[in-house]
Amino acid sequence: MSENVNVPKNRLPNLAAPTPQNTPLTGSGMPSHALLSQPNVPTVEENDEEDDDEDDDGKAILDPRLAPQLMQMVQGRLATLVGQSSGYIENLPYKVRRRVEGLKGIQVEHTELQAKYHQEMLELEKKYNTLSEPLYKRRLAIIEGEAEPTDKEVESGVESSKKEEDEDIFDEEESKKKGEGDDVKGIPEFWLTALRNHVGISELITDRDEAALHHLTDITLSYLTSPAPGYKLSFHFSPNEFFTNAVLDKTYHYKEEVSYLGDWLYDHAEGTVIDWKEDKDLTKAVEIKKQRNKNTNRTRLIRKIIPAESFFNYFSPPVPPTEDQLEDDDVDQEEIEDIEERLELDYQIGEDIKDRIIPRAIDYFTGRALKYDGLDELDEDEDEEFDEEEEGFDDEDDDDLPATRQAPKDGTTKPEECTQQ
Amino acid sequence: MSENVNVPKNRLPNLAAPTPQNTPLTGSGMPSHALLSQPNVPTVEENDEEDDDEDDDGKAILDPRLAPQLMQMVQGRLATLVGQSSGYIENLPYKVRRRVEGLKGIQVEHTELQAKYHQEMLELEKKYNTLSEPLYKRRLAIIEGEAEPTDKEVESGVESSKKEEDEDIFDEEESKKKGEGDDVKGIPEFWLTALRNHVGISELITDRDEAALHHLTDITLSYLTSPAPGYKLSFHFSPNEFFTNAVLDKTYHYKEEVSYLGDWLYDHAEGTVIDWKEDKDLTKAVEIKKQRNKNTNRTRLIRKIIPAESFFNYFSPPVPPTEDQLEDDDVDQEEIEDIEERLELDYQIGEDIKDRIIPRAIDYFTGRALKYDGLDELDEDEDEEFDEEEEGFDDEDDDDLPATRQAPKDGTTKPEECTQQ
Repeated sequence: MSENVNVPKNRLPNLAAPTPQNTPLTGSGMPSHALLSQPNVPTVEENDEEDDDEDDDGKAILDPRLAPQLMQMVQGRLATLVGQSSGYIENLPYKVRRRVEGLKGIQVEHTELQAKYHQEMLELEKKYNTLSEPLYKRRLAIIEGEAEPTDKEVESGVESSKKEEDEDIFDEEESKKKGEGDDVKGIPEFWLTALRNHVGISELITDRDEAALHHLTDITLSYLTSPAPGYKLSFHFSPNEFFTNAVLDKTYHYKEEVSYLGDWLYDHAEGTVIDWKEDKDLTKAVEIKKQRNKNTNRTRLIRKIIPAESFFNYFSPPVPPTEDQLEDDDVDQEEIEDIEERLELDYQIGEDIKDRIIPRAIDYFTGRALKYDGLDELDEDEDEEFDEEEEGFDDEDDDDLPATRQAPKDGTTKPEECTQQ
Repeated sequence: MSENVNVPKNRLPNLAAPTPQNTPLTGSGMPSHALLSQPNVPTVEENDEEDDDEDDDGKAILDPRLAPQLMQMVQGRLATLVGQSSGYIENLPYKVRRRVEGLKGIQVEHTELQAKYHQEMLELEKKYNTLSEPLYKRRLAIIEGEAEPTDKEVESGVESSKKEEDEDIFDEEESKKKGEGDDVKGIPEFWLTALRNHVGISELITDRDEAALHHLTDITLSYLTSPAPGYKLSFHFSPNEFFTNAVLDKTYHYKEEVSYLGDWLYDHAEGTVIDWKEDKDLTKAVEIKKQRNKNTNRTRLIRKIIPAESFFNYFSPPVPPTEDQLEDDDVDQEEIEDIEERLELDYQIGEDIKDRIIPRAIDYFTGRALKYDGLDELDEDEDEEFDEEEEGFDDEDDDDLPATRQAPKDGTTKPEECTQQ
């Protein structure tokens, strides 16, 4: 038998780790590190070659009958971890407690500073959107075929492809073998293709939507100022057979007051009401059923308008539950969770369009953006998706839409906090 | 049998969704929405009461023998999703391709703008750290007992507790019943308690570490400027029996060049070499074994120094693999993945100390911070932890350290990108 003086971190005792609720003001008991200087242990240098016969089975196995006590320890730890009071702060002597309250007061000042910080970050975001607008206008002109790129722009683009080690590097002579393309105006289907290359948004676009999204000519960003901040995504369309609107807006409103941490929080989102032309509403489908009358035994056809999956549902965002609904026990909690999940997804898609697709549309068009957009997670989702379908081939649920999870680029808003408040 | 004219989004055909590689320049085939205006279907109004006999089993079940083809479709989709070329961009006619290259060139200008944006965000972060320093100094003075909070600070703190609906609201008379606390200087164990209430860091602190962390008097933040940006966390200690250093620094260096997206990337981290006093190194443990000599059959004791888990290992961060190692097939890929995981955790802990614990130490001390720090995920982790331990009670692995996953507050750095580059 070997004697093991190593003091490994034992997770279970650690469950009663010091927290505001159970940290004693002064240490008690012998600190475990004292074992290190335990006296009377003769020592020699390690000799690996003579180690063959060592017998090392000193691992402690706890008595399973201890389980109830351990359960209590774990539950105690959980209780303290979620910030529930178990008396530590309450039981501090008066002068110490007063200092703690004073620090809370100082923190209020710090939170005000943080709110100003987030306000300045938002101003910075706006400033750089404004600075980017000439580049976005130039991009639009080329996509629309109203301008051709300069040689310098093309050279710079080819350079960036080399730097990024793209597989295919533009070569003028090679390219001309594919045809001159004199009859093609601009870059057809630029925005549809870009959206299709965003993993989360791609899942929203049905085959039926594509014909309408062929007419998407630009997506632009502007900011709200009053009463609360927020941003507006404008989807510009050429005249089409689906709806009469020239622009579909999706507007994200932040709450007027920042969070306790100084962050912006989403309040709600709104979308333009789409003026669908007759029988062209992509968010609706017609279901036709035969129906037999019990008495006459005759059948007839029933035409029923039902909701359909469509990218254009993005303009009818879910309505956040009210405070009353959240507190009302009669309201189905599962339903609220479902709405909150859909809200989070809606906010995430807004952020991705604002922070990724508008600034880097060409990278989504070419697929280069996929190199940078959390591909690890994507792979996982795709694998799971296939596993599910392999069994039955009839799964039409879209619940596992793989929204990208990376940190928002600007950091001014955290959609997940919306559901925590 | 009912005839279903609804056109639900069918996931499998959608696997061949348009991407840069397979989107035709012009649509082909009849768009599926045409079904909506299918002629010759007589319609009547829906009548729910007569719906009893409806027979609705029109769901398509695909032939399982199609599986190999479907597999190919899925794999094709995966290939295009990871941005591998399958000829779409290459096969664009010359003039269209030239426009695409021009947009890439315009994107280079935009990326330069993004780099300036991130530089300005970092300056803003520094500015607000400087603005916070007087508050941090005031906090330190109260924690150290060198100053007492003003009545105004205490009132403001109590107000914030009411606003946050804390369970226990400070009441002077009630508090005095717990004793005056005249003999207690400042707020003992303030920083140890705060660190203990951060879920990820708490897991790093062993029982042995606590005696040393009793001497932690402050954590401060400063920024690097040359040659590349970065930040330094300084852990200040009162004189103690463990080491002679008064300050232990952990320095995070960003790469000089921002990423393709304009973000800062971590280059590496460094920690102060700790001057441990004799037999006090908390990152080492002594293992003593009996050893029997095969020939003489005598036993002797072997003293072996082995690495020990300790918070102080934080000052010996993992060394990132070199480019050569990453490309060398002989280097164990699992080992590299392990290092990269540990690096990501190390960067995450740095960000959490910088962005959460230093700015809001009092909230960690009281546990209020736990209300805001991704508790959902915590609950999950804690549950899993318990499940594991319930079975054997001997699990000492610490691999499931629940690092918090929320977006970094400032958004200037994304640790996860470090491992993608």
